[in-house]
Amino acid sequence: MNTNKKKIFNDPVYGFITIPHPLIFDLVEHPWFQRLRRIRQLGMSHMVYPGALHTRFQHAIGALHLTVQAIETLRSKGHEISEEEALAVEIAILLHDIGHSPFSHALEHSIVTGISHESVSLLFMEKLNEEFEGKLSLAIQVFKGTYPKLFLHQLVSSQLDMDRLDYLNRDSFYTGVLEGKIGAQRIIRMLNIEQGRLVVEEKGVYSIEKFIIARRLMYWQVYLHKTVLAAEHLLVNILIRAKELVSSGEKLFATPAFSYFGK
Amino acid sequence: MNTNKKKIFNDPVYGFITIPHPLIFDLVEHPWFQRLRRIRQLGMSHMVYPGALHTRFQHAIGALHLTVQAIETLRSKGHEISEEEALAVEIAILLHDIGHSPFSHALEHSIVTGISHESVSLLFMEKLNEEFEGKLSLAIQVFKGTYPKLFLHQLVSSQLDMDRLDYLNRDSFYTGVLEGKIGAQRIIRMLNIEQGRLVVEEKGVYSIEKFIIARRLMYWQVYLHKTVLAAEHLLVNILIRAKELVSSGEKLFATPAFSYFGK
Amino acid sequence: MNTNKKKIFNDPVYGFITIPHPLIFDLVEHPWFQRLRRIRQLGMSHMVYPGALHTRFQHAIGALHLTVQAIETLRSKGHEISEEEALAVEIAILLHDIGHSPFSHALEHSIVTGISHESVSLLFMEKLNEEFEGKLSLAIQVFKGTYPKLFLHQLVSSQLDMDRLDYLNRDSFYTGVLEGKIGAQRIIRMLNIEQGRLVVEEKGVYSIEKFIIARRLMYWQVYLHKTVLAAEHLLVNILIRAKELVSSGEKLFATPAFSYFGK
Amino acid sequence: MNTNKKKIFNDPVYGFITIPHPLIFDLVEHPWFQRLRRIRQLGMSHMVYPGALHTRFQHAIGALHLTVQAIETLRSKGHEISEEEALAVEIAILLHDIGHSPFSHALEHSIVTGISHESVSLLFMEKLNEEFEGKLSLAIQVFKGTYPKLFLHQLVSSQLDMDRLDYLNRDSFYTGVLEGKIGAQRIIRMLNIEQGRLVVEEKGVYSIEKFIIARRLMYWQVYLHKTVLAAEHLLVNILIRAKELVSSGEKLFATPAFSYFGK
Repeated sequence: MNTNKKKIFNDPVYGFITIPHPLIFDLVEHPWFQRLRRIRQLGMSHMVYPGALHTRFQHAIGALHLTVQAIETLRSKGHEISEEEALAVEIAILLHDIGHSPFSHALEHSIVTGISHESVSLLFMEKLNEEFEGKLSLAIQVFKGTYPKLFLHQLVSSQLDMDRLDYLNRDSFYTGVLEGKIGAQRIIRMLNIEQGRLVVEEKGVYSIEKFIIARRLMYWQVYLHKTVLAAEHLLVNILIRAKELVSSGEKLFATPAFSYFGK
Repeated sequence: MNTNKKKIFNDPVYGFITIPHPLIFDLVEHPWFQRLRRIRQLGMSHMVYPGALHTRFQHAIGALHLTVQAIETLRSKGHEISEEEALAVEIAILLHDIGHSPFSHALEHSIVTGISHESVSLLFMEKLNEEFEGKLSLAIQVFKGTYPKLFLHQLVSSQLDMDRLDYLNRDSFYTGVLEGKIGAQRIIRMLNIEQGRLVVEEKGVYSIEKFIIARRLMYWQVYLHKTVLAAEHLLVNILIRAKELVSSGEKLFATPAFSYFGK
Repeated sequence: MNTNKKKIFNDPVYGFITIPHPLIFDLVEHPWFQRLRRIRQLGMSHMVYPGALHTRFQHAIGALHLTVQAIETLRSKGHEISEEEALAVEIAILLHDIGHSPFSHALEHSIVTGISHESVSLLFMEKLNEEFEGKLSLAIQVFKGTYPKLFLHQLVSSQLDMDRLDYLNRDSFYTGVLEGKIGAQRIIRMLNIEQGRLVVEEKGVYSIEKFIIARRLMYWQVYLHKTVLAAEHLLVNILIRAKELVSSGEKLFATPAFSYFGK
Repeated sequence: MNTNKKKIFNDPVYGFITIPHPLIFDLVEHPWFQRLRRIRQLGMSHMVYPGALHTRFQHAIGALHLTVQAIETLRSKGHEISEEEALAVEIAILLHDIGHSPFSHALEHSIVTGISHESVSLLFMEKLNEEFEGKLSLAIQVFKGTYPKLFLHQLVSSQLDMDRLDYLNRDSFYTGVLEGKIGAQRIIRMLNIEQGRLVVEEKGVYSIEKFIIARRLMYWQVYLHKTVLAAEHLLVNILIRAKELVSSGEKLFATPAFSYFGK
């Protein structure tokens, strides 16, 4: 293994995050992933919560970190997860949001309509799979939920996936809305597998209850905050109007990249 | 007092921050101050520390918050600070960085040479003073250090000013470099005035020692990080080259606002 | 004011806590209050949560600290609270638990039956009032709820009093059960008075919801933990048996102070 | 492995701590180790820092936790540590303070003179080794530094051992003296082995610098606090006087266990 690829991130939420595999390192280095550095996790929410400037790059790395811990926990409870499977689920979580555009929700209701960011993520993964000579095939199966070990898919996408565990904690940290903070470490320790599916041990019931409450409180206080929604609504309408103007031959200032989308 | 102007910010570093005066509220609302929302405190450092996306807007509000606490402490120790003086020092700290451009250090070595951001801040304040009909006059005196009560100026600009107390804590929080975390609350509690100057009580010596160490460690690990410096050096040279090209009649893509600077 | 009495406590939960008045200092110094240093807040819970060794001394100081903040908030919203009233409510909260014995709940079901710790607290306060020449009279009215401004009593004893705000946070901190952590600062900022009673502003509804959940989760995970209850049940029966043996003339080893109670 | 022995502690400092081996569980359960629950880590310091009530029990479990992490790190860097060796170093750190008496320093200067707590710890370990049929032999070698792989001993006892990493963080947490907080996780990640000895990677130099400063600040603010030293001095003299009185036939009140020592 090329030790130069054992990079460590300094994450304000979890502390040190180690990149677990050289292929993960190469994916993080890829311009399509680096692009997530310029996409905010919470769109316009920083208008209300000035600290909420964190990006999908940080979130993807954070969700990866929690996934590594979850795999470790499940293995320590006697469940077999091969190196290939571990890598696949790590790649799947790393890339689960790679299809996001800036202001995704606003854009999806104005310029880029009729296609979800999940589908775009999958398109990205398939392109990357070509570039990386098939090394992402297993990850794509895990992402799509077609791989037999369903619990691997559930780590990436389910009611209690590593995506949610990370974003609740991270959004809570950066907005300063402490009500959203959850004991991700505790929940992960309580994970187990029963009949091929991800379950939580009985004694973890309180942590799950708190997780559900935290999620609801974050929706009320942050995700559905009236000023944030108003700002996004405004942006949608600005974009729709811009699209109209461009369609009618008006020349508008925009970055070359963005103008392309308008076509 | 218009209670609609008693806005509370949710700051991830200190929790709630209350805007202490309607005039402060109006200054925060001003487009020149809102502009700081788009200027990162640490320039290119987020290349190395992905969380370091915080802005000069947040820093200015944070330094204001610490200043309010410092005034409270000094008053509780029997030093007289009038309402007007308190407001003046609060305005001075709020606006101390208003002259900053994006990538200040890079720009100061390429496009906008020969003028410090402090001088620009002062120009901004004087313009705002006109707009606000002289209500910032005392604040400008405090900022320049011409007001007789020198300790007020020292809260804004000295070896132990509220600027530094805030940025060390804030930069530490957002980079995840815990070595920079300082006990701002403890230091503020230890502040006193002796012969018209800001001093620290003897029993606060350890906190000061730790503050100095923390500052040095932040310089070594963050402010002078080799990759950050390299990125800024690169940016300086990109900008110098762009300036040359524009001077020789080349047409370059840039936002209208930025093109203006190049003239 | 004797500045020697401006003592500052270093509290792991809130940071610095300043003793707000010389009389408070004298009460804290009193042997009956110092005695709380030797009474654990959570009785036998440290058997399950090894960190839960904190005392009623720390809790009383912490509740005092929150009360000082609550008074400040209410005053800043235009409600009049005189210096005498502020001191009275501070004393009332400081002494609200002074009647507690070690393992209160166990003792109340074995040795010292038929009298609640609240009544004992009141007896203590009345004795202290004699010693301090009537300076606690107003505090006692506030404690009993006979003082006209009912909201002062509610700060000391109600569904949302400073007692609960402190103990939830403190018990959460020392047990490591993060589910109990509440945003005490946020709740206090949302306090207001309506028709003479303590209320919470509408926008604080989420914090209150979280407070209620946190409380329930602490009951389930800590206060009613089966092993803790079993340990206390065991202790009750040990004490009952000891009482029987002593009654029948058996000589048991005990500290002189404790032997006294057995009589 | 008996899964009933996979106990998890809820530690306020690190979160969850898993007992890594059934033998460790049995040692923790042993009355001699449980006795550490009643011995405070910081003796009389709680007189000054009311929160400093934590015990040697918690510290020993915490140091064990850091040791498990250190072993993991060293293994991930390619150094071979067998299961037996890992268990040995874990036992050695768990029991390194088992010889401590209450108020060790005070007692060592009054009642129990001429023998260090380290020697007593070793006596305890040897007795336990008999009871556990030789299963602690390797741990004792590691503890004494006679086992060839010296770095294992250095994890238990050296300038940068897991003992210090834990107690600095823990004492900082419970006293509220934030200056003592160190990045234990970061330091552990930087550990390596060179020529059979524990070293720190070059890029960890700042963390080490901060560790040394933190230690010094804790000495100044906590360990050598004048009031704490005065209280301990007082206790030493009380004990010496008690010893004299008992020697001259006076009958003093003391617990049976303690009276035994006086003989």
